[in-house]
Amino acid sequence: MNHFLSTAELSRDDLGSLLRSAAQYKAGRRQTGELAGRSVALVFLNPSLRTRASMQIAVYELGGNPVLIEPGATSWSIEYRENVVMDSDKTEHLAEFVRVLSRYVSAIGVRTFAEMKNWELERTDPVLSAFARYATVPVINLESAMHHPCQSLADMLTIRERYGEERKRVLLTWAWHPKALPMAVPNSFALAAAQCGHDLVIAHPDGYGLDPELMHAIGTHAELNGGSVEVVNDPEKGFEGADVVYAKSWAPPPFYGRPDAVHSAEQRDKWIVNADKMALTANGVFLHCLPVRRNVIATDEVLDSPNSLIIDEAENRLHVQKAILASLVK
Amino acid sequence: MNHFLSTAELSRDDLGSLLRSAAQYKAGRRQTGELAGRSVALVFLNPSLRTRASMQIAVYELGGNPVLIEPGATSWSIEYRENVVMDSDKTEHLAEFVRVLSRYVSAIGVRTFAEMKNWELERTDPVLSAFARYATVPVINLESAMHHPCQSLADMLTIRERYGEERKRVLLTWAWHPKALPMAVPNSFALAAAQCGHDLVIAHPDGYGLDPELMHAIGTHAELNGGSVEVVNDPEKGFEGADVVYAKSWAPPPFYGRPDAVHSAEQRDKWIVNADKMALTANGVFLHCLPVRRNVIATDEVLDSPNSLIIDEAENRLHVQKAILASLVK
Amino acid sequence: MNHFLSTAELSRDDLGSLLRSAAQYKAGRRQTGELAGRSVALVFLNPSLRTRASMQIAVYELGGNPVLIEPGATSWSIEYRENVVMDSDKTEHLAEFVRVLSRYVSAIGVRTFAEMKNWELERTDPVLSAFARYATVPVINLESAMHHPCQSLADMLTIRERYGEERKRVLLTWAWHPKALPMAVPNSFALAAAQCGHDLVIAHPDGYGLDPELMHAIGTHAELNGGSVEVVNDPEKGFEGADVVYAKSWAPPPFYGRPDAVHSAEQRDKWIVNADKMALTANGVFLHCLPVRRNVIATDEVLDSPNSLIIDEAENRLHVQKAILASLVK
Repeated sequence: MNHFLSTAELSRDDLGSLLRSAAQYKAGRRQTGELAGRSVALVFLNPSLRTRASMQIAVYELGGNPVLIEPGATSWSIEYRENVVMDSDKTEHLAEFVRVLSRYVSAIGVRTFAEMKNWELERTDPVLSAFARYATVPVINLESAMHHPCQSLADMLTIRERYGEERKRVLLTWAWHPKALPMAVPNSFALAAAQCGHDLVIAHPDGYGLDPELMHAIGTHAELNGGSVEVVNDPEKGFEGADVVYAKSWAPPPFYGRPDAVHSAEQRDKWIVNADKMALTANGVFLHCLPVRRNVIATDEVLDSPNSLIIDEAENRLHVQKAILASLVK
Repeated sequence: MNHFLSTAELSRDDLGSLLRSAAQYKAGRRQTGELAGRSVALVFLNPSLRTRASMQIAVYELGGNPVLIEPGATSWSIEYRENVVMDSDKTEHLAEFVRVLSRYVSAIGVRTFAEMKNWELERTDPVLSAFARYATVPVINLESAMHHPCQSLADMLTIRERYGEERKRVLLTWAWHPKALPMAVPNSFALAAAQCGHDLVIAHPDGYGLDPELMHAIGTHAELNGGSVEVVNDPEKGFEGADVVYAKSWAPPPFYGRPDAVHSAEQRDKWIVNADKMALTANGVFLHCLPVRRNVIATDEVLDSPNSLIIDEAENRLHVQKAILASLVK
Repeated sequence: MNHFLSTAELSRDDLGSLLRSAAQYKAGRRQTGELAGRSVALVFLNPSLRTRASMQIAVYELGGNPVLIEPGATSWSIEYRENVVMDSDKTEHLAEFVRVLSRYVSAIGVRTFAEMKNWELERTDPVLSAFARYATVPVINLESAMHHPCQSLADMLTIRERYGEERKRVLLTWAWHPKALPMAVPNSFALAAAQCGHDLVIAHPDGYGLDPELMHAIGTHAELNGGSVEVVNDPEKGFEGADVVYAKSWAPPPFYGRPDAVHSAEQRDKWIVNADKMALTANGVFLHCLPVRRNVIATDEVLDSPNSLIIDEAENRLHVQKAILASLVK
């Protein structure tokens, strides 16, 4: 079964082909028939605006029928572990949930955030993996514990729209946030930037590094595609000469299982993206996956500047998802 | 940008033209193509039956795709104030929320009730105004703190179906309710009745008057269109000779910011619409926006009488909304 | 008005005709036009996966527009009793809710579980009955306090797919569950099995019998259609020679009004469906309406065996519902 779980599974050609297809959908936006008469399940275990709206619209614009499912709310709570005696709070097993949906629909999109409880478990993306294991139709990752590939494809399209296919200096920079957030977005962004052969700089406080195994894969992709990877712990250093600034908060593994853990308050002003930091870049553009907390992650001045591409980036979610859906459902 | 926020922005011609268009949609109900291939976002910050169902169906019957969004539930909680440091409970700013949606859809409907906390602020309809300010597609008010223009157009259509375009004696009468309710429905009904040139009587307990600035606008519209406005505090007086009785509970400004404030119990029997009061009218019809608490706002006898047009009125929501959507999205 | 509330209202011919229609929809799955331009309301007062997804898809595949309504959540809370003074927690009366929806849509599906509070009341299916009484379009029961006819039609189709129209030995067997569950599924399964002329065995602990009036009707249908009904209290006995094993937990009348009532723990191992019990059957197939608690109702070994038809059974929900919708909406 051909799933879309992360960009790691895509060759550089696959990736380029999806981005070209997305650009074509964007250029000539109209209703087409790739999904005519077909339904696509969109399973949300977590809140969503862009993903929820843009996936519904992507399915509709391809001629199909989006079916939203919210386990634990309008639908049953689900168990994913095997060989479990289900006498507790979970009502339905993914073994049935996913196999039944596979009979009804032509593809299944699923959002399942990290619970931030058990790093060793969650870094393996157990819920998403169970979906993929049981499904007999393609599964699309709409953000899992470890990856958000629809987002990173939209990010890459947005960079290409500005700079073409050139190798660019791309900064992924950590930011303070009142809550501990998962790593799916920075993981997928860093991976895709490496796959596109950019010079990637990752800036974060000491101890906030991404998953070592993933960092190894990112390094391999960078090398293969003529790019590079650099990690810095100085909040200003990454901005120097950057063509792209991608801001995102995340919590490293030691935060998992500690629901009250917060980032140190002194990091707040130190890491916020403001005009002073943007002035260090090569007239760089600003990206963020949204939702963004204004004047916490980045200042109003940065978010509302002409170099802020956040709205284009969100729009591109729609176009890349049409390309992904069309490539999976034949 | 051409929004639909209240009927205040419409000329009498515009209003007449929307009502004629609605009547045509009602007469020949079938699927048409005004919204073919297009999506419309329906943003609900509050519960809804009629608006939610009838807007979905209106978009579908015009050939389009309704996309429901529930901030704070299935979607993120939203901030609308400018220049705020977003380090508290709000996750996304309307500046992004609305600009992103504008890229995905051809129109945005939004329901955002009064919070009943701060009259001076809420009377300016701050959330709806922010939607209109940020949107680059038409915004449709699906009930805001101060207005419910889809409802008042449906009300006017229902009156026309019964009486034609004649000037009629139209009573808006307050009713007791266990909770303090917003003023959007009475505001919009009174405004539209004045714009249609009716003789409007507003009956309410002393101290329950509508917003003075709005009352001034209502007076101006009445004068311009050959009608009149009268306010009475006697529960029986308004019924005398009325052709239309519109019952609705609302809470006046002093209730804002006092979550436990309730209407005095003695007003309950005094203001309920019953057969005795209806007997004072000129065989008048009964209207209510629904949902209606039976035997609290009006008795079963009134609600189930042949003169009760509440179901026609609710049906007309669908038809006027098709007319509104078709007029906004070209 | 022609509603679909239980199979009791169907002749054996009607039932056969629906099953043949369902088989045809399954054989040639494509989008058709029976509901073109029409909307169908799907009202959920309780959670749902299969019903919610499969009804949405059924309506779409017939060319129509499904409209989901969740009273008490995204919509208002509803009152169904007549002559009530609505000054408490219920916001809208079914008298309005259903009559308004009837103006918007071509059919209304409704899920309204037993509340497990008052057996004498709930056994009359008061909420579903009120929907049927007020509706001016067909009402489809998507599981009520007493019946789940869409499920039992899917069950019968699944049995026919395996065995044709032959008379079979069909076991409905009770199972332990951590919560007290309603009787709609066993009621409807037993009724439909009798209507199809099978030899029905119902196995349950002493004191767990189905509603006596319903049991009488089941007996009458069995006799009329050349089948039989037997009740046993021995967990093994029912399995002997069974062609079909249908497992389901339910709570009998004494559990109503006792929210903390639980099934005795010793029944757990005694009644679970496992390989040993299945070995007593005539190579029987295993059915369950889902969601199923693994290793509580039935073991993994049974659920994952080749004789387990639970996924086919769930798929058949879609096909029978298309047949039902098409038969009701002309």
